[in-house]
Amino acid sequence: MAASASSLLAAAASSSCAAISPRLPRGAPAAASVPSPSRHTCPSLRASPARRHQSRFVASVAPTMQPSAESRVSTVVDVDLGDRSYPIYIGAGLLDEPDLLQRHVHGKRVLVVTNTTVAPLYLEKVTWALTHNNPNVSVESVILPDGEQYKDMDTLMKVFDKAIESRLDRRCTFVALGGGVIGDMCGFAAAAFLRGVNFIQIPTTLMAQVDSSVGGKTGINHPLGKNLIGAFYQPQCVLIDTDTLNTLPDRELASGIAEVVKYGLIRDAPFFEWQEKNMSALLAREPSALAYAIKRSCENKAEVVAQDEKESGLRATLNLGHTFGHAIETGTGYGAWLHGEAIAAGTVMAADMSHRLGWIDESIRKRVVDILEQAKLPITPPETMTVEKFKSIMAVDKKVADGLLRLILLKGPLGSCVFTGEYDRKALDETLHAFCNN
Amino acid sequence: MAASASSLLAAAASSSCAAISPRLPRGAPAAASVPSPSRHTCPSLRASPARRHQSRFVASVAPTMQPSAESRVSTVVDVDLGDRSYPIYIGAGLLDEPDLLQRHVHGKRVLVVTNTTVAPLYLEKVTWALTHNNPNVSVESVILPDGEQYKDMDTLMKVFDKAIESRLDRRCTFVALGGGVIGDMCGFAAAAFLRGVNFIQIPTTLMAQVDSSVGGKTGINHPLGKNLIGAFYQPQCVLIDTDTLNTLPDRELASGIAEVVKYGLIRDAPFFEWQEKNMSALLAREPSALAYAIKRSCENKAEVVAQDEKESGLRATLNLGHTFGHAIETGTGYGAWLHGEAIAAGTVMAADMSHRLGWIDESIRKRVVDILEQAKLPITPPETMTVEKFKSIMAVDKKVADGLLRLILLKGPLGSCVFTGEYDRKALDETLHAFCNN
Repeated sequence: MAASASSLLAAAASSSCAAISPRLPRGAPAAASVPSPSRHTCPSLRASPARRHQSRFVASVAPTMQPSAESRVSTVVDVDLGDRSYPIYIGAGLLDEPDLLQRHVHGKRVLVVTNTTVAPLYLEKVTWALTHNNPNVSVESVILPDGEQYKDMDTLMKVFDKAIESRLDRRCTFVALGGGVIGDMCGFAAAAFLRGVNFIQIPTTLMAQVDSSVGGKTGINHPLGKNLIGAFYQPQCVLIDTDTLNTLPDRELASGIAEVVKYGLIRDAPFFEWQEKNMSALLAREPSALAYAIKRSCENKAEVVAQDEKESGLRATLNLGHTFGHAIETGTGYGAWLHGEAIAAGTVMAADMSHRLGWIDESIRKRVVDILEQAKLPITPPETMTVEKFKSIMAVDKKVADGLLRLILLKGPLGSCVFTGEYDRKALDETLHAFCNN
Repeated sequence: MAASASSLLAAAASSSCAAISPRLPRGAPAAASVPSPSRHTCPSLRASPARRHQSRFVASVAPTMQPSAESRVSTVVDVDLGDRSYPIYIGAGLLDEPDLLQRHVHGKRVLVVTNTTVAPLYLEKVTWALTHNNPNVSVESVILPDGEQYKDMDTLMKVFDKAIESRLDRRCTFVALGGGVIGDMCGFAAAAFLRGVNFIQIPTTLMAQVDSSVGGKTGINHPLGKNLIGAFYQPQCVLIDTDTLNTLPDRELASGIAEVVKYGLIRDAPFFEWQEKNMSALLAREPSALAYAIKRSCENKAEVVAQDEKESGLRATLNLGHTFGHAIETGTGYGAWLHGEAIAAGTVMAADMSHRLGWIDESIRKRVVDILEQAKLPITPPETMTVEKFKSIMAVDKKVADGLLRLILLKGPLGSCVFTGEYDRKALDETLHAFCNN
């Protein structure tokens, strides 16, 4: 298969590392202004034939620049987890390149897990990509109902039913084709089917592309709380075809932007500043702006996950706004608010609490509100969320340890946060009362 | 807690390694006759306070000897899996010693998962052992219906419901108190709850003590096949109180013996010969005979699992008779036959097929039949199992790879087997027709 790797493969294999790039896109600053190498140098690229190709297209090289709207984008971000490492391919038209997908399929049988919204748009294309010039592979699919409210055990069982009825064995591959709900469910099904089979993520929403498809968190909801049942289970690869965003509704696009904003706030101030300048380009779906936001988000996530796969500490910081946000999702019934909408309101609440604690300046709190408003995201929880409802749902959050609720809060200059159970409870109470009816 | 470790702790910490034992039980052979070190030396004991104690009681030191009926038995077998290593404690009255259990509890909250049969017998005792002189720990319990037919997703959800309603967090510990069904379900629940919490196995059936509680295979059944949904997930420790066998029905005892016989057949000829001589002692529940059978079984399993945790090859040999046996269990409806009963008939079928292939002598085939008959186990499948039924269920076995059914078959002298898909299909057909109606 390596011999037949086409130009696109080479493109997909281009590095995210500015230093070795032969071309800089228009508008890129001189090399001297590239931010500190600790964050922006190449993650250790594993040796693979594709990666030895020269890069042909380069997305963008520095977080402070404005990417060119015309640049065709293709890059690889590596998630470095020892023998569970895998690449994230990011580019336009990657689903038109069967080799890229096929090289990560194990065995001869594939089960595509998708939903009623995505199947009519991309199932045929993905099936083609899996089987083109590859007659040995057969593809089954299971089409689930669309929405967070179906991220439950009953729906998960439909995946097992299909896999078992199709007599799939341990050498099969599951493919998650859809948004975060599909990725989480397909990943957990792959983790548990025959005690673990291979799987591939093909995220088709911005939310899944910048966050949920990367890092191996899989699972389903319980009526009493989000993602309470699941597994840490890594995919073989993540394939992000940015063309799939062309069919994404505006509300879903904004939802994904909430997680992009998160990365800036918790660890990447230059990226946050880039977003402040480029939010209108993101909302207008300028391809290069979207590609850059996805790439920088994946790099941030990959760096965090590589350091703390099982969330013993650092990884929890990726949950800024999520404890409040999950409470909103659970309290309003899964699916009423999109995940990113709940996270946006939750992030504003976390910033408010951080400010009440004296941990961040008012100017940072205001920038958080402003950027989320600019992204047309909610900045307050829905009126049905009372203080008591928040407290009761937050008590079963996964970050509670021995009864103590730990939170991710902003602390210090822009781009800094802490994960801690040591904070004045009064500030939490005040924030809840400021945002909720009693 | 180490300071309060009583004599029993020291006893429990005694090594299974003959070479360092200060005392030999009556009837033990001289050191020179202890079999080859590769199998019978100590697995690497991890440093822990308990293990630095001198052993006070020694179970038995060589597979060819007859253990003394009077010897009080207490030993530790280590499962060596790097950072997932754990001890198996084997002894009479271990549940009367709270320190042993408490040292492996993480956090302050415990959920005991048990069933309607075991709860009245041991739940109070285990709760006492968890909380005695340990007021910081609180214990919840969930009591499931008893039987293989309840090893399903609906019953599993009751464990999640209880854990979430009790607001358990990531620092809790699940305790499996019961037989193999409870161990498998509790283990899978622990693997999936909040993406993984600690758990402890307290097996109360011989089947669970010699096999299912050791090695980290967890899971539930699907209507179309056994254990098709699950995880590899290791416990913190396995605590085998052999006194719990006093309440075990005869049929359950025999069921466990089927797995004991398996270890002899696949890798430990001296153990098989010991069983041939001591079957009546096992059936009469002589404590030292049972303790020796448990210890030697756990040692065999620990050695296999340490070499191949995720069943890429060697570990599959532990499934001798299981492909036929699982088909019987699935085909007759879960719970009609006990697991070991189905495995016994399956083992006879595997021996028959091995003999048809010319891989073992007739004398070995006959010894397999004889020992299982002596254990009062079935040596043929039930009449309802047709050839077609076997074939159709075996096609979804986890050991099918790319459509090829691989089997564990005996090959060579006693104590030798192979795991292979390369066999004459005619022999499989002949065996099925010899044992079944059409």
